[in-house]
Amino acid sequence: MASDSTFAARTIAQSAKAAFEASQLISSSERIKALSAIRKELESAKDEILAANRRDLEAAQLEVDAGRMSSSLLKRLDLGKGDKWDSMLQGVTDVANLPDPTGIVTYASELDDDLELYRVSCPIGVLLVIFEARPEVVINIAALAIKSGNAAILKGGKESNETAQLLSKAIQTALSRSSIPSTYIQTIQTRAEVSALLALDQYIDLVIPRGSNSLVRNIQNNTRIPVMGHADGLCSVFLDESADLDKAIRVVLDSKTDYPAACNAAETLIVHENVLASIWPAVAKSLLDADVKLLCDPATLSVLSSLSPAPVNLHTHVHPSTPESYVTEHLSLTLSVLAVPSLSAAIKHINAHSSHHTDSIVTEDAGAASTFCRGVDSAGTFVNASTRFADGFRYGFGTEVGISTGRIHARGPVGLEGLVTYKYMMKSKAEKGHVVGEFGVGEGKKRYKHRRVAVDSVPFLQ
Amino acid sequence: MASDSTFAARTIAQSAKAAFEASQLISSSERIKALSAIRKELESAKDEILAANRRDLEAAQLEVDAGRMSSSLLKRLDLGKGDKWDSMLQGVTDVANLPDPTGIVTYASELDDDLELYRVSCPIGVLLVIFEARPEVVINIAALAIKSGNAAILKGGKESNETAQLLSKAIQTALSRSSIPSTYIQTIQTRAEVSALLALDQYIDLVIPRGSNSLVRNIQNNTRIPVMGHADGLCSVFLDESADLDKAIRVVLDSKTDYPAACNAAETLIVHENVLASIWPAVAKSLLDADVKLLCDPATLSVLSSLSPAPVNLHTHVHPSTPESYVTEHLSLTLSVLAVPSLSAAIKHINAHSSHHTDSIVTEDAGAASTFCRGVDSAGTFVNASTRFADGFRYGFGTEVGISTGRIHARGPVGLEGLVTYKYMMKSKAEKGHVVGEFGVGEGKKRYKHRRVAVDSVPFLQ
Repeated sequence: MASDSTFAARTIAQSAKAAFEASQLISSSERIKALSAIRKELESAKDEILAANRRDLEAAQLEVDAGRMSSSLLKRLDLGKGDKWDSMLQGVTDVANLPDPTGIVTYASELDDDLELYRVSCPIGVLLVIFEARPEVVINIAALAIKSGNAAILKGGKESNETAQLLSKAIQTALSRSSIPSTYIQTIQTRAEVSALLALDQYIDLVIPRGSNSLVRNIQNNTRIPVMGHADGLCSVFLDESADLDKAIRVVLDSKTDYPAACNAAETLIVHENVLASIWPAVAKSLLDADVKLLCDPATLSVLSSLSPAPVNLHTHVHPSTPESYVTEHLSLTLSVLAVPSLSAAIKHINAHSSHHTDSIVTEDAGAASTFCRGVDSAGTFVNASTRFADGFRYGFGTEVGISTGRIHARGPVGLEGLVTYKYMMKSKAEKGHVVGEFGVGEGKKRYKHRRVAVDSVPFLQ
Repeated sequence: MASDSTFAARTIAQSAKAAFEASQLISSSERIKALSAIRKELESAKDEILAANRRDLEAAQLEVDAGRMSSSLLKRLDLGKGDKWDSMLQGVTDVANLPDPTGIVTYASELDDDLELYRVSCPIGVLLVIFEARPEVVINIAALAIKSGNAAILKGGKESNETAQLLSKAIQTALSRSSIPSTYIQTIQTRAEVSALLALDQYIDLVIPRGSNSLVRNIQNNTRIPVMGHADGLCSVFLDESADLDKAIRVVLDSKTDYPAACNAAETLIVHENVLASIWPAVAKSLLDADVKLLCDPATLSVLSSLSPAPVNLHTHVHPSTPESYVTEHLSLTLSVLAVPSLSAAIKHINAHSSHHTDSIVTEDAGAASTFCRGVDSAGTFVNASTRFADGFRYGFGTEVGISTGRIHARGPVGLEGLVTYKYMMKSKAEKGHVVGEFGVGEGKKRYKHRRVAVDSVPFLQ
């Protein structure tokens, strides 16, 4: 079984790499045509795909009834619900219409007369994307991969297998009518295949796990291939001593309650001790009114306990925190709260406890804002704005590959740019070509010019 | 012993992270001052350091005499040789004078009135750099780390321990007189400490191994921390059917013989079969005249065997190749040669056999040049230029952190830019701050503007 998976995985990985390499000569317009063909194929296979989706849902319902699956997971499986199907199709068109992330020159320098160097964006290669139940992710990721020129191997949750197989078949059918090899997008079903693929760093260039912390860490522990993962979202809001009361209430409420299950929702509120009496009670009241449970340190707790009149839900909603509270991603209407004596103590707490995702300060002090933004070592540092803004669509990327809590390659919300790397191209136009032996410090030797050139694309590419 | 190393490693890693976090509020000019202090401290400790270096050299000489160390390794240890000491000092000044790689805005967008988003370059965090014998690398890496705002933990070869310890002491002394914490740059001596540090991904953000393939792979196999490694340099030159004879000779000779031990030297020559009779004999002659040994496939071998007159060193320098020849980094005056029937066969051979470092085509055909540059999946793709140009200094970066054969984060020659990542900063200037609940599609909801803004730096940072 293991050796079958190993053999199958090698075949899949090799054909993905071959498809990637062949695709490098295919123009951007051909990739857009392929995306349009995928949309058409999905439209004509709609009934068949939704029927398969209903079979997945029925099997999932049995699991839910038996207490082996959560009903929220079941809901995420449903491709026929609301405008989900249409959104999925529109997503393909939206990605097709985004600017091409490849072929962009980010550095150009004239090294010598007739010798120009170009650093130009290009696809990474073969992506291995591992995600959970939602079957439409197959189509999202396939669209992003094709648009950015990467081949991809996709592994979804086993709960959506029937749906995913038909979505995958639609992609294959569409690609087989295009100039892009049909092995450009492949799907796999088993964990054994994933394990075997993680060993094949000669064929696979990047692993993108979209799921739990434990999934990400397990993958990082078992591969030499770089991993672009989203660990978790432990975001915080700090109320500085110069915080404005209205801004404090609005930013904290939105950060916590706009969508508590999101990774960019706030999990911790840090209060400067100088505003414990002035601002904290009103912020706490608005949170309690919004049904938020507060896990408080002694200082913030004692302020609430001594309020008169006491908040109506004080006893049900306010509890003492534990050290564990400040490293917990609640993903619900629960907020951990603590007081600190200074801005610098707040920054230290955040750097030690947050997941380096997104943290926000509420302050009227320009110096404090600057210190917070520089000192907090997170992918997003905001001033007087909700942590919920940390999102690829809100940032204006048009799409979101994921949110990276790593620092290497891509950090924070990742758009199509996260799926490209770059290469250096150089062409000598000199009569005899260019060799380095001509350059140096001695007599008759040439010196490098290193004159920056302003161009958007490589002039000699056809 | 292992638990001692684990404890020591944790202390080192924690203090490096704390030093990094504290340093985020230190200005670029303070970092430049610290570099200048390091240079002064090195100057005043010169005699002491060179005495320690002589002790390292004496110990190494005993190892060489006993046949346990190569004499080339011994040569690399010598810090007193030629202008090595002065170059090392000048290197510190050169790095100090480079443009600051941090604080640069690479994306700015107005999301709404009074709400601007900035993507700004910033240091990565804590670097773990592992390198071999040359002791001056301690100073090079320390300068690069300080300039780019990263803390660093350095592990050199044990052969240079005495020298490295005094270089490290000079850095510590200089830092203790600056505003940068002295634990910003730390050195470690043992492999056990390295092993322990590789487990501490909560403190260490990037591992940079500079050494053999096996060192890099061993590290990749034993850590979750991202690795920016240089695997090997298996570069090739392809003589296209439209190659110019003079360019072919010059580019091949320079690529192979300018510095055969370098990673950007050519190891393989690929000849289009249509120029086997016209160009290959003259290229081969110039290589043989330069004392290059040729490992040839049947087609290229048979052309040389039937030359009249035969090259004088035909029998000593021309041998049949094996499949192994084309995946061997010779690092000497040896070149593997093969013939291919087409440009596309050349690209396939390179993608399957090269280390994706740098490959060059010699051609007069603009279409072939474009196809080669797009189709060859390497960090550098050159036309009529020597592979030896692939180098950070020649590319105009002013310095070189290393050459990455990975595709993630940094690829090819890496300058200071490879030591930075980015973060997103956002400040609301609106009267009530900004929350996402105000945006949406319903009545009274705001829409995102996503208007690109042209700025070089974040306006609200102080």
